[in-house]
Amino acid sequence: MDHKRDEENGLDGNYNSVVETEHMKEKEKEKENQEEEEEMSVERLFEGKEVPSWREQLTVRAFVVRFVLSVLFTFIVMKLNLTTGIIPSLNVSAGLLGFFFVSVWTKFLDKSGLLKQPFTRQENTVIQTCVVASSGIAFSGGFGSYLFGMSQAIAKQSENAGGNEEYKNPAVAWMIGFLFVVSFLGLFSVVPLRKIMIVDFKLTYPSGTATAHLINSFHTPQGAKLAKKQVRVLGKYFSFSFLWGFFQWFFAAGDDCGFAGFPTFGLKAYKYKFFFDFSATYVGVGMICPHIVNISLLVGGILSWGLMWPLIETRKGDWYPADLPSSNIRGLQGYKIFIAIATILGDGLYNFFKVLGQTLLGLFYQLQYKNMSGVPPIEDRSSPRSSSTCYNDTRRTQVFLKDQIPTSFAIGGYIAIAAISMATLPHIFPQLKWYYILVIYLVAPTMAFCNAYGCGLTDWSLASTYGKLAIFSIGAWAGAAHGGVIAGLAACGVMMNIASTASDLMQDFKTGYLTLASPRSMFVSQFIGTAMGCVISPCVFWLFYKAFDDLGQSGSEYPAPYALVFRNMAVLGVEGISNLPKNCFTLCCVFFGAAILVNLVRDTVGRKRAQFIPIPMAMAIPFYLGPYFAIDMCVGSLILFIWQRINKAKAEAFGPAVASGLICGDGLWTLPSSILALAGIKQPICMKFLSRATNARVDKFLGA
Amino acid sequence: MDHKRDEENGLDGNYNSVVETEHMKEKEKEKENQEEEEEMSVERLFEGKEVPSWREQLTVRAFVVRFVLSVLFTFIVMKLNLTTGIIPSLNVSAGLLGFFFVSVWTKFLDKSGLLKQPFTRQENTVIQTCVVASSGIAFSGGFGSYLFGMSQAIAKQSENAGGNEEYKNPAVAWMIGFLFVVSFLGLFSVVPLRKIMIVDFKLTYPSGTATAHLINSFHTPQGAKLAKKQVRVLGKYFSFSFLWGFFQWFFAAGDDCGFAGFPTFGLKAYKYKFFFDFSATYVGVGMICPHIVNISLLVGGILSWGLMWPLIETRKGDWYPADLPSSNIRGLQGYKIFIAIATILGDGLYNFFKVLGQTLLGLFYQLQYKNMSGVPPIEDRSSPRSSSTCYNDTRRTQVFLKDQIPTSFAIGGYIAIAAISMATLPHIFPQLKWYYILVIYLVAPTMAFCNAYGCGLTDWSLASTYGKLAIFSIGAWAGAAHGGVIAGLAACGVMMNIASTASDLMQDFKTGYLTLASPRSMFVSQFIGTAMGCVISPCVFWLFYKAFDDLGQSGSEYPAPYALVFRNMAVLGVEGISNLPKNCFTLCCVFFGAAILVNLVRDTVGRKRAQFIPIPMAMAIPFYLGPYFAIDMCVGSLILFIWQRINKAKAEAFGPAVASGLICGDGLWTLPSSILALAGIKQPICMKFLSRATNARVDKFLGA
Repeated sequence: MDHKRDEENGLDGNYNSVVETEHMKEKEKEKENQEEEEEMSVERLFEGKEVPSWREQLTVRAFVVRFVLSVLFTFIVMKLNLTTGIIPSLNVSAGLLGFFFVSVWTKFLDKSGLLKQPFTRQENTVIQTCVVASSGIAFSGGFGSYLFGMSQAIAKQSENAGGNEEYKNPAVAWMIGFLFVVSFLGLFSVVPLRKIMIVDFKLTYPSGTATAHLINSFHTPQGAKLAKKQVRVLGKYFSFSFLWGFFQWFFAAGDDCGFAGFPTFGLKAYKYKFFFDFSATYVGVGMICPHIVNISLLVGGILSWGLMWPLIETRKGDWYPADLPSSNIRGLQGYKIFIAIATILGDGLYNFFKVLGQTLLGLFYQLQYKNMSGVPPIEDRSSPRSSSTCYNDTRRTQVFLKDQIPTSFAIGGYIAIAAISMATLPHIFPQLKWYYILVIYLVAPTMAFCNAYGCGLTDWSLASTYGKLAIFSIGAWAGAAHGGVIAGLAACGVMMNIASTASDLMQDFKTGYLTLASPRSMFVSQFIGTAMGCVISPCVFWLFYKAFDDLGQSGSEYPAPYALVFRNMAVLGVEGISNLPKNCFTLCCVFFGAAILVNLVRDTVGRKRAQFIPIPMAMAIPFYLGPYFAIDMCVGSLILFIWQRINKAKAEAFGPAVASGLICGDGLWTLPSSILALAGIKQPICMKFLSRATNARVDKFLGA
Repeated sequence: MDHKRDEENGLDGNYNSVVETEHMKEKEKEKENQEEEEEMSVERLFEGKEVPSWREQLTVRAFVVRFVLSVLFTFIVMKLNLTTGIIPSLNVSAGLLGFFFVSVWTKFLDKSGLLKQPFTRQENTVIQTCVVASSGIAFSGGFGSYLFGMSQAIAKQSENAGGNEEYKNPAVAWMIGFLFVVSFLGLFSVVPLRKIMIVDFKLTYPSGTATAHLINSFHTPQGAKLAKKQVRVLGKYFSFSFLWGFFQWFFAAGDDCGFAGFPTFGLKAYKYKFFFDFSATYVGVGMICPHIVNISLLVGGILSWGLMWPLIETRKGDWYPADLPSSNIRGLQGYKIFIAIATILGDGLYNFFKVLGQTLLGLFYQLQYKNMSGVPPIEDRSSPRSSSTCYNDTRRTQVFLKDQIPTSFAIGGYIAIAAISMATLPHIFPQLKWYYILVIYLVAPTMAFCNAYGCGLTDWSLASTYGKLAIFSIGAWAGAAHGGVIAGLAACGVMMNIASTASDLMQDFKTGYLTLASPRSMFVSQFIGTAMGCVISPCVFWLFYKAFDDLGQSGSEYPAPYALVFRNMAVLGVEGISNLPKNCFTLCCVFFGAAILVNLVRDTVGRKRAQFIPIPMAMAIPFYLGPYFAIDMCVGSLILFIWQRINKAKAEAFGPAVASGLICGDGLWTLPSSILALAGIKQPICMKFLSRATNARVDKFLGA
């Protein structure tokens, strides 16, 4: 799985970008010298190895591995979608697990004498690409955001905020149809741009490049040795995390039962969601995210749940009616949701214009230098070209351009699918008129290009920001009377899918370019991956939806925070600010401005100081959810920090493996857990936390 | 702390012996070659270092360290006494901690320019001796056995078993008085035997020798380096264990609350005490005890709580009245207690005769070869004497004999204290007539000699077996009408103290002999240690007694299992078997026989196969308590086993340090915990475990 996709997550799309970009910056510096040397010799190293033909790169074993990994990662992404919406970069674990599965497979076949084809880096890349495409749908399908935001369960929670009579409950059939219709557009729109972005513009695509380095290193002898060790560590923590999830299950009969409701810092702190919930997933996520992101989350949590909400609560009866249930959007809940939205929009807008500016600047630069051959404008801008870099480039470009995909095929595909969309989408969503779709599809290729280019430059995908633009513009166009909320959310889905797929797949092409994978086999693999994703993701979501009754309910195990946030954005876009509780709009403006200001400060003080300034986007997430997962993530951060202090080299080499193991193991446990829930097998024990006084009462009650 | 003392624990005295002996056997083989080489050169290595005079060996800093360590270890031993009665060998941790404290101290003084005297191995030995003497009292004082067995709380539980009208509740004043009167006798009785046992007989004293090796190694340069590493590991796990104890505290408001009542394997298994109670202490203890001991405990637990008790429970109403409360000794509780006693007595008696046989055989051997000089009869029996061994011996003997303690002083002291005892003890225990005491004191020196000699040969102290003999003999003599129960228990105390101190201190003299510590400074240190112990132990016990209301109650946090066992032995001795429930005596006979049989089999099949046969003594402990602590200990065993598999050298070097850290940290937490209890600060939260159905009821109750 390519991690660019992940950057778009967190519903705003930019949040995880920040995560990666910060990360990249740190690492790039260290690796610069080392990598340059490597770079010199990579293709020389692989010179003796024949590049398999594009058909050979598509093996049966790879299909099996792809399918298994796609399901696993769809589960993980879905769980993250529905719990906090923060999805870290899973590319390292996908790479490791893919390598692991095929290695075991080939070793097994080798022993039984059936091995016909060795495991090549091209095959590895093709697997990676497919898994990215497939599990990417779990994010861009909007199961934690726009799509689930249409459901009645979410509509009920934004009750009294208007538009709650409009809903469309999830169902496997229409979800699969919808995804098939919108997901392939991005794929076709990206193909013609392939050569321009990768060969002509030589864009960096940091995540794609990092993944390619990982795959290349796996297939050199000493790289394979380290990879094997990493895989072993990953396996250990994978099993631990899976078993821990299993163990926790037994004690979670009922609400607030079990480890997920452990009042680590006391019952009073628990009331304000300050506790460590023993989630292996978020400890792992914390280990992958840069320290500043985790700190930002915690700071945001303290600011909101430690300070603002208790203060606003004292105004109960004045700022908002005292008799409202706690989940009502006109009460405290409204402040939580809309202040979070304001902060996310402020940060998103700032970064949108920033990346747009960089994109235009970069394009301008490209066009100026276009005809000077031999001067790669973006990549290697600073370093002189050595002969081996030249060799690498020549060889890669040659392979990359060998298997062509005709542009006419791509354009034809795009137009065909656009036509089908226009015909079918209004049947799924009557509120989404065919002319809205036409407009979106006319604008979409430009958006896809912008997003793919911007992502290549900054590793920053703005897919969900484009989605939000669609929410507001189409929503306003349709208007409240004509189902603007659903129209807006559906338009968001169409736009997000195109923009997200475009940047995702371009990253993959970069990876393919650097590992000599055939673009044709890449395309086929992406096609298959997308198709798999369109089926797997709705099914997995359906499993969650059926297994957990309280899906999307505030305070439950799966609150799906962004579903409510997206819906309320749509409501806001359609109906305006009239429904907000007292002073809420003022506060929103303050936070919107503060988000922009903090970003400005972060960009002006220089990289060194900026790493001590919290990121507004990250701060906004706990506004609604509470700081408990931020505490998990800070624990992960702390573990990694101490580990780095003790043994930096080891922490760098095995930290991601440990984190991936923790995330994947816990993620996989959700599969049996939801099956158990579906089968009606319920947890036998409740681990309950009572105050001393309540406990005395309960003991008396039970004794009587 | 010398670990011979610990061997006497487990109330039977033999249980921990087995632990150690098994351990020793394993290790000795491995170390044989290595040690012989070491042995060659030890005193040559230290040749350049001057041996400080006996006064110089007694430093002020050592007194402070002694006091701190004595308090710490008294807490640990007291906690172990009152929870399960299993006390592992703490000599390694005492050694490490003593070294650590003085090292820090000297380093600090060195930096401030105030260091006048370097830290010598003699000083280290003297500290060790003092801590052993002091915390030894916590065991031989019988706070978890005979002394607490006299109290009303325990008497109530053996209700209907007769003799429950006789009790003497603990009070600091009489406990200190009692200990002062009986504890010094052992010290004086041992002094005249010193030269015979160590220089003439050259007895091995495996534990004392091991401690000496440890201390010697600490004071060679590379030994000090390893010791420092070990100390660091110990410190880490010490803090972890302390903080874990602290964390657990918050969730333990009320019975069955908190981690100590965690139904790890489900509520049904919890009912039969199969659960992991997250006790760092017993995980640590499990790491120190040999695997077979832990397995034996678990086998015993499964046999009793998994099989026998549930079966006997089905006979409720037939074998015993159905309407008895569960703690009544005429019900199921009676089977638990008396079958455990029978097994312990069977194993104890077998080993008593075995060690007695070995003692007599050894003595016979000694006397035969007495006049052949240069042929050390026990030590080095097989290996020829090399010149360096000769040098070691000469040098050590010379130092050992330099500072004499006059025999007349020892004998005078013994007689004086015996006279005081006879005058005062009947005032404390009116049931204990002066002529009982006279008889005990006439027999005692022989017992002390036997125990010290047997321990030197086999590392096996029989102190508590001698104590039990006293219970039965004095109890029967006094008879039920004249308070035989209290008389028996008090006599047990007198006997145990003498026998235990004798073997303890002789081990220490061996350590002193091997580290060139002056016997005079050793004696002074032991004297001070004993005096400290006589004050510290009752105070610590008093703290527990006052802080935890349910001390000694079956099923509570501190069940003090052996207090009830000892009392019931006394009752049995005085009143016979008439009070046992139906078929209980038959079962007791079966287990008594089985214990002897298993021991016989263990001794005949050879050492290799014996390590797969459970030890009856260890199996009997969970009969009364339940298998939960056996599960903790098996977890410790498993951790060590896996560690040994991964890295044997590291596990050997740091395993004891980890274990000691876990035990000491948790042990130290009992200090603040009992102070909190005394101050009336109660745990705020109850972590409760309810079945799904009960939880639904409770939620309804709380909601209403």
